[in-house]
Amino acid sequence: MAAHRSAWMNEDLDALRDLARSFVEKEIKPNIEKFLEAHQVDRDLWNKAGELGLLCMSIPEEYGGGGGTFAHEAVLMEEQARVGDSSWGGSLHNGIVAHYLLEYGTEEQKKLWLPKMASGEVVGAIAMTEPGTGSDLQAVKTRAVRDGDNYVVNGSKTFITNGQQADLIIVVVKTGADEGAAGISLILVEGDREGFRRGRALDKLGQRGQDTSELFFEDVRIPVANLLGTAEGQGFIQLMQQLPQERLIVAIGAVVGMEAALEQTLRYTKERQAFGKPIFNFQNTKFKLAEVATETRIARVFLDDCIAKHLQGELDIPTVAMAKWWTTERSTAVLDTCLQLFGGYGYMTEYPISRAWVDSRVQQIYAGTTEIMKEIISRSL
Amino acid sequence: MAAHRSAWMNEDLDALRDLARSFVEKEIKPNIEKFLEAHQVDRDLWNKAGELGLLCMSIPEEYGGGGGTFAHEAVLMEEQARVGDSSWGGSLHNGIVAHYLLEYGTEEQKKLWLPKMASGEVVGAIAMTEPGTGSDLQAVKTRAVRDGDNYVVNGSKTFITNGQQADLIIVVVKTGADEGAAGISLILVEGDREGFRRGRALDKLGQRGQDTSELFFEDVRIPVANLLGTAEGQGFIQLMQQLPQERLIVAIGAVVGMEAALEQTLRYTKERQAFGKPIFNFQNTKFKLAEVATETRIARVFLDDCIAKHLQGELDIPTVAMAKWWTTERSTAVLDTCLQLFGGYGYMTEYPISRAWVDSRVQQIYAGTTEIMKEIISRSL
Amino acid sequence: MAAHRSAWMNEDLDALRDLARSFVEKEIKPNIEKFLEAHQVDRDLWNKAGELGLLCMSIPEEYGGGGGTFAHEAVLMEEQARVGDSSWGGSLHNGIVAHYLLEYGTEEQKKLWLPKMASGEVVGAIAMTEPGTGSDLQAVKTRAVRDGDNYVVNGSKTFITNGQQADLIIVVVKTGADEGAAGISLILVEGDREGFRRGRALDKLGQRGQDTSELFFEDVRIPVANLLGTAEGQGFIQLMQQLPQERLIVAIGAVVGMEAALEQTLRYTKERQAFGKPIFNFQNTKFKLAEVATETRIARVFLDDCIAKHLQGELDIPTVAMAKWWTTERSTAVLDTCLQLFGGYGYMTEYPISRAWVDSRVQQIYAGTTEIMKEIISRSL
Amino acid sequence: MAAHRSAWMNEDLDALRDLARSFVEKEIKPNIEKFLEAHQVDRDLWNKAGELGLLCMSIPEEYGGGGGTFAHEAVLMEEQARVGDSSWGGSLHNGIVAHYLLEYGTEEQKKLWLPKMASGEVVGAIAMTEPGTGSDLQAVKTRAVRDGDNYVVNGSKTFITNGQQADLIIVVVKTGADEGAAGISLILVEGDREGFRRGRALDKLGQRGQDTSELFFEDVRIPVANLLGTAEGQGFIQLMQQLPQERLIVAIGAVVGMEAALEQTLRYTKERQAFGKPIFNFQNTKFKLAEVATETRIARVFLDDCIAKHLQGELDIPTVAMAKWWTTERSTAVLDTCLQLFGGYGYMTEYPISRAWVDSRVQQIYAGTTEIMKEIISRSL
Repeated sequence: MAAHRSAWMNEDLDALRDLARSFVEKEIKPNIEKFLEAHQVDRDLWNKAGELGLLCMSIPEEYGGGGGTFAHEAVLMEEQARVGDSSWGGSLHNGIVAHYLLEYGTEEQKKLWLPKMASGEVVGAIAMTEPGTGSDLQAVKTRAVRDGDNYVVNGSKTFITNGQQADLIIVVVKTGADEGAAGISLILVEGDREGFRRGRALDKLGQRGQDTSELFFEDVRIPVANLLGTAEGQGFIQLMQQLPQERLIVAIGAVVGMEAALEQTLRYTKERQAFGKPIFNFQNTKFKLAEVATETRIARVFLDDCIAKHLQGELDIPTVAMAKWWTTERSTAVLDTCLQLFGGYGYMTEYPISRAWVDSRVQQIYAGTTEIMKEIISRSL
Repeated sequence: MAAHRSAWMNEDLDALRDLARSFVEKEIKPNIEKFLEAHQVDRDLWNKAGELGLLCMSIPEEYGGGGGTFAHEAVLMEEQARVGDSSWGGSLHNGIVAHYLLEYGTEEQKKLWLPKMASGEVVGAIAMTEPGTGSDLQAVKTRAVRDGDNYVVNGSKTFITNGQQADLIIVVVKTGADEGAAGISLILVEGDREGFRRGRALDKLGQRGQDTSELFFEDVRIPVANLLGTAEGQGFIQLMQQLPQERLIVAIGAVVGMEAALEQTLRYTKERQAFGKPIFNFQNTKFKLAEVATETRIARVFLDDCIAKHLQGELDIPTVAMAKWWTTERSTAVLDTCLQLFGGYGYMTEYPISRAWVDSRVQQIYAGTTEIMKEIISRSL
Repeated sequence: MAAHRSAWMNEDLDALRDLARSFVEKEIKPNIEKFLEAHQVDRDLWNKAGELGLLCMSIPEEYGGGGGTFAHEAVLMEEQARVGDSSWGGSLHNGIVAHYLLEYGTEEQKKLWLPKMASGEVVGAIAMTEPGTGSDLQAVKTRAVRDGDNYVVNGSKTFITNGQQADLIIVVVKTGADEGAAGISLILVEGDREGFRRGRALDKLGQRGQDTSELFFEDVRIPVANLLGTAEGQGFIQLMQQLPQERLIVAIGAVVGMEAALEQTLRYTKERQAFGKPIFNFQNTKFKLAEVATETRIARVFLDDCIAKHLQGELDIPTVAMAKWWTTERSTAVLDTCLQLFGGYGYMTEYPISRAWVDSRVQQIYAGTTEIMKEIISRSL
Repeated sequence: MAAHRSAWMNEDLDALRDLARSFVEKEIKPNIEKFLEAHQVDRDLWNKAGELGLLCMSIPEEYGGGGGTFAHEAVLMEEQARVGDSSWGGSLHNGIVAHYLLEYGTEEQKKLWLPKMASGEVVGAIAMTEPGTGSDLQAVKTRAVRDGDNYVVNGSKTFITNGQQADLIIVVVKTGADEGAAGISLILVEGDREGFRRGRALDKLGQRGQDTSELFFEDVRIPVANLLGTAEGQGFIQLMQQLPQERLIVAIGAVVGMEAALEQTLRYTKERQAFGKPIFNFQNTKFKLAEVATETRIARVFLDDCIAKHLQGELDIPTVAMAKWWTTERSTAVLDTCLQLFGGYGYMTEYPISRAWVDSRVQQIYAGTTEIMKEIISRSL
C-alpha cells in the first residue's frame, strides 16, 4: 500500500518536519521518563523550542511569530505525538493561548506577550474548567469584580494544562451579574500576581508528565487593561470561536497516536514468536491489524480534510466536533486492540503502547467531552 | 453544518447529475414495487438509459460510449442509490462488464459489443462464483475445453447479477490443466448459445428486484475468438485488476445508502411524536443521529478521496479493500440504528428504510467478503 | 463442553418436549414455505395443537387448560423457535391473551372463552399499538364510549399479531375523558362484530408468515359485560402486570434463535470448504464462533434464571426488561455473525439462517422497544 | 429492582462476609495509597489475614486450613474487589498456590507448607510465564537438570504475582529433553535458595500495588523431593487442571469490579450537576447506566452459575474460558463507560473509578489471554 502523504503538506512543511523531528528526537524523546517522574517538562524545553523557531509559528512575524499557518503547528504536533510524548504542552501554548491573544488582544497586549511566548520566555495557559463545572462553561463561578482600575478575582480552576509553568493565564471569569453566556469574560492573569496560587500537579492516570493543575485566585487584583476583548461579556463567544481549533488539535494527537501504535504493533507482532511462528501470522492478528490499519487510514483522511478546510477558513463547528469525538474514541479503541497484541508487555509502562493507550483515554474528555460533541452535532442536523 | 460537495465534482458532472436524477425519479423510483414483484427491471429500462446516454459513459466515444470517466459512472450510481433502488444492474454493466471488454477485448470484440452495450441493446454480466466456490476464484470448476476452433464449456455459476436479462456474459473458466491461477481464463458467452440455460432468479433476503441467478453451461460451444485477452491463463490477473473498481462501486452504494438513511430518519424523527414531543427531541435520538451523521460524513470523505485517487489512477488495492469492508459494515450498522428509530414502521417494507437495511447486508458479502478484504489489507502491512 | 440443561426442566417437561417437538416437526416445519406464501398459518393448525393439548397449557383445567405452568408454555415456544418458525402466533394466544382472561376476566368470561381457546376453536389477539402511537400506550386514541349497556368503539390498531385469524381480540381503549393512564381500559371484541374490519396482513421484512395486521373499529357496539376487569380504568395496570411475561416470551425466542443459529453455522462451516480446508478451520471462523457460543451460553443462563424466577413469582419488571433488550440485541448480532459465515448463501431465503436473521430484527422493537426497556431499567437504578 | 443474592451463599458465608468486609475495610482500604506507593502490601497484612482465619479457607483443617470450600475463597475475593484493591495477592496464594500443593503435593510437602501458608508465615507464588513465552507454556525455557539428589535450575520468569514477598514459589520448568508438554514439571523453590534472585517490581499501568516481578534462577540447587507430583512430566496436566479455578478467580474480580463501578457511578451522577440538573437525569446517562446495569447483572448471574457448578465439581474448561474472556472484556468496557460519566474526574487517580478501569485492563491478558480462551472454546465446538 502506498504511503500516505497529506495533501496539505508542501516542501516548506517538509523542511519544518525535519527540524521538528530532530527537536523531539533530541530534546523530548530521551527525557520522557524524566518528565513523567517530575510531572512536568524541563522549563528550558520551552526556550530551546523558541530558539529553533518552533514556538508561535502561526503568529505573524510582527509579533515575534513565524508568520506561518496552522499547518506549521500541525507538523510540530504530529512529530511530538509520533514519539508518544504527552508531557509538553506546546500545542496549547502555540495553537490556543497565542491565538486568543492574536484574535482578541489589544495591540499593546499582543506586543507585550506574543514575542515572549515565541521565545519561550513566557509559557501560556488557559483556565476554563472549575471544580464544580465541567463542560458547562456558562456556570463558572470565578468572579472578577470591578474595583476602580482593577478587577478583583476570586475562585478556583482545575485541570489546567501548563498549570505549574504558566507565566500568563487566560482566565474565564464572570464579570457580569448575568448568569448566562453574556456574563462571561476572559482576562489575562500573570503568574506572579499576589493572591494567585497553584495547587499540586494533579495525579492523573496518564499524560503524567503534563503539569495539569488546580489554580486558586484569592482577591487577585488585575488591571482592567488585562481584559481580553473590547468589552466585558465577550468571553463566551471568544471561547466558541477558538474551541474548534482546540478540538482539531486534539484530533491530530488522536490520529497520530493511531498511526504510531499501528507501526509499533506491526513491528512487535512480526518479531515476537508464539506457538512456533510470529504472532502476526495468526489470522486473528492479521484481521485485527487490518481493522486497525483501516480505521487509522480513514481517520487520517478525514483529519487531513479537516485541516485543509481549516487552512481555508472553512471548517465548521459541527464538522470539527465529528472529528474530535470520532478520532478520539477510535484512537482509544485502536490502541486497546494493539495493546492486547503485546500480551503482558502491553501493560508494562516501559512499552510505549501502554502509555499511549492510557494517555489517549482523556482525549475523549478534555476540550469538550464526546457527549458535548454529540450535542453540538445534533443541533446542526 | 455546510452541505458537503465532493471535490471531484465539476459543472459538467452537475449537469449529468440533473439528467441522472430525472431519469431515476421518472423511470426507476415509481417502478420499484413492480421490479421487486417481477424480480427484475423492465427490459426496456436499459434502452431508455441508453437513449439518454446514461450507459457506458466511461467508455470512449469510438466504441459508442460517452467518453467520460469513472466520475460519470459514480454520479449515476449515486443518483440510483439515492432513491433506494437496488434492482437495476446498471453499475455492473457500465462500471465492470464494459471495462473488461475495453481493457482486454480485441478491437473486433470492442467494436462488436460496446456500442450495443451503450445503446442498451445488449445487457452484460460477469459470472465468477460457483455453487461450490465462494471467494476462492482459483477453485472454479467450470471448464472450457478446446475442440478445434471452439471451446466446449461445462459447469455452473451462481449469484450472477443481471442473470435473467444478460445477453453477453463474461464467464470465468478453467482452460488449463493447472489448478491454480494460471489455469483461469475469461470467455465471452452470448446469451443465446445452445446448451446455456438460466436458472430461476434467486430468492434473496433483499435486493429482490435484482435478477441474481444461477447459470448452467452444458456442452456450450463457444468460438475460440471469444476468449478475452491475448492468450489463455490471463483471467486471474484480469480479475485482480478489475476488482478494485468493482469494490469502489460497492462502496459508493454503501455511502449513499447511509446518506439517504440519515435524511429519511431526520425527517421521520422530527415529524413523529411520542410521549408528547418529536422523537428527535429525545437525547438518545439526538446522540444516535449525531453518531450516524458522523460516520456518514467520514465515510463520504474517505470515499471521495478514493474516487479522486481512482480518477488519477492512484487507488491501490489495499486502500479500496479498506473502503469496501468499512463502508459496507458501517452502512448496515448505520441503517440498523436508523431502522430502530422508526419503531415498528422500520420493519414494514413500505418504508424505504426497511428495504435499505436488508438490501445493505449483502454488500458485506459480494465483490469479495469482508474477510477477503481483511486478508488483502493484512498482506500489504 | 457439557450440553446445557435448564434447571427448571423436569421429567414431565421432557415428555412434553417430545410431544411438542413431534408437533412442530410434523405440522409446522414442512409447511413454513406455505405459511410464508399465505402470510398466515393454516387455520386448522390451531385445532391440531388444541387436540394434542398444546394450547393453554398454563391455564387451570377447570377452564379447559392443561393445568401446567409457564414452563410448559416455554417448552413449546422453544421447540417452535428451534425449527425457525415465526409464523404461528401460538405463544401470544397461550402465553398472553389467555392470561389476561384468566387474571382479569369474570367467571363468565373465563368459562366462555378459555375452553374454546384451549381447543383451538377460538384464536386470541391483543390490540395495543395504534398508527399514531408506538410505545406510548397512554396516548391511544381508540375510544369506547358508553351508550346504555354497550360501548361504541371507534379507532384503529396496527401491528396486531394473529390479526387475520383472531376470533377474540382484547382491545386497549380509552374509556375515560382522562388523557393519562387512568382512562385506559381493556375490552373484549369478538371478530364477527359489525363495524369491525381487518386490514391486509402487513408486508414485513421478516416473520412474513405471521398475519400481523391493521384492525379498524367503526361504531362497533360491544356489550358492557365485555369489559375486562371490575371497573373502567384498570387497563394500564393490567398491561403493566402482563407485559413482563410477554417480554420473557420474546427473550425465549431470541435465545433459542441464537442456539439454533450456532448449531446450523457449526454444521455449515465444518462441511463447507474454501481455500482447501473447511471454513471452520480458519482462526477467524473459530474465534467468531467462540464469541457466538459464549454469548449464546450466557444468554441461556440468564434466561433460565429469569424463567426460574418467574415460575416462583419473583421476576421483577426491570430484570425482565434487561433480558428483553439484551437477548434480542445480541440475538440479531449473533445471527449477523453467523449469516456472514455462510457467505452468499446466508443471503438466500432458502437457508434458514437468512430468515432467522431478518426475523430476529423486530424482536428489538415489539413488546416494548429497546429504548423503552432502558427507560424502565434506569428508573429502577 | 430486587437486590441480587447469589444462590451459592448461605448463613455461614454471610458471617464470613462480615468478617472479610471488616478486614478489608480496616486493613486494606485505608492503606491502598501506601501499597501503591510501595508497589507491595505490608508484609504483615498476610499475618493479620492468617490470624483471622482468612488464609487457606478452602484447605482441609488437617493442614491448618479452614476446611471450607471455594465459596469461602470467593467471598473474600469479592470483598477485596469491592473496595477496589488490586494490591494484595491473597487470591493467588489461597485459591491457586495452596491448591497445587493440596492436589499434587506429597504428604510431607503438605504438612510442611500448608500450615505456614494458612498462618501467613509463608507467602506463595507460581512462576509460569517467561520473557520469551507468553501463553505458550510448552515453550518454557527454564530448565531443571538432575544432578544426584538435586535439580539445578536455570532460567528466568516474569509477570510473577507476589514476586517480591513470596517465600515459596512453584516454578514451571523443563525437566525432560522433550520439547512438548511431556517435558514440563513443577518444582517448589524456596525464596532463600542460593542463586535465586528477584528483579524489581515491574512498572505496570495499573495494579501498581501488586509486586509483580521478574525472577531469576542461576544454578539454583533444589532437592529432588521438591518436585510436585509423583514423577517428572506431569506439570502440563497439573497446570491444565488448575487453570480453570484461576480463571474463575479472575472472573470474580471482573464482575465485582463492574458492580462496584455501577454503584459509584450512580452515586456520582445523581449528585453531580451539569447544565442545571444531575447528570443522571440526562437520557444519555440513564441509557448508558441501564446498559451497564444490564451487563453487570447478566455477568453476575453467569458467574454465580459458574461458581455453583464449580462447587459441585462440574465446571468444564470451555465454560470457564467463556466466563473469563467475556467478564473481563465487558468489565473494562463497563468501567470505560462509567469513567466517561465522571468527566475529567474519571481520569484522576484519586477517584477509584479511574484506578478500577486501568486495573481491569490486564484481566484480559493474565491467566490466559482472551485469544487463548477463544482457542479453548473453539476446540470444544
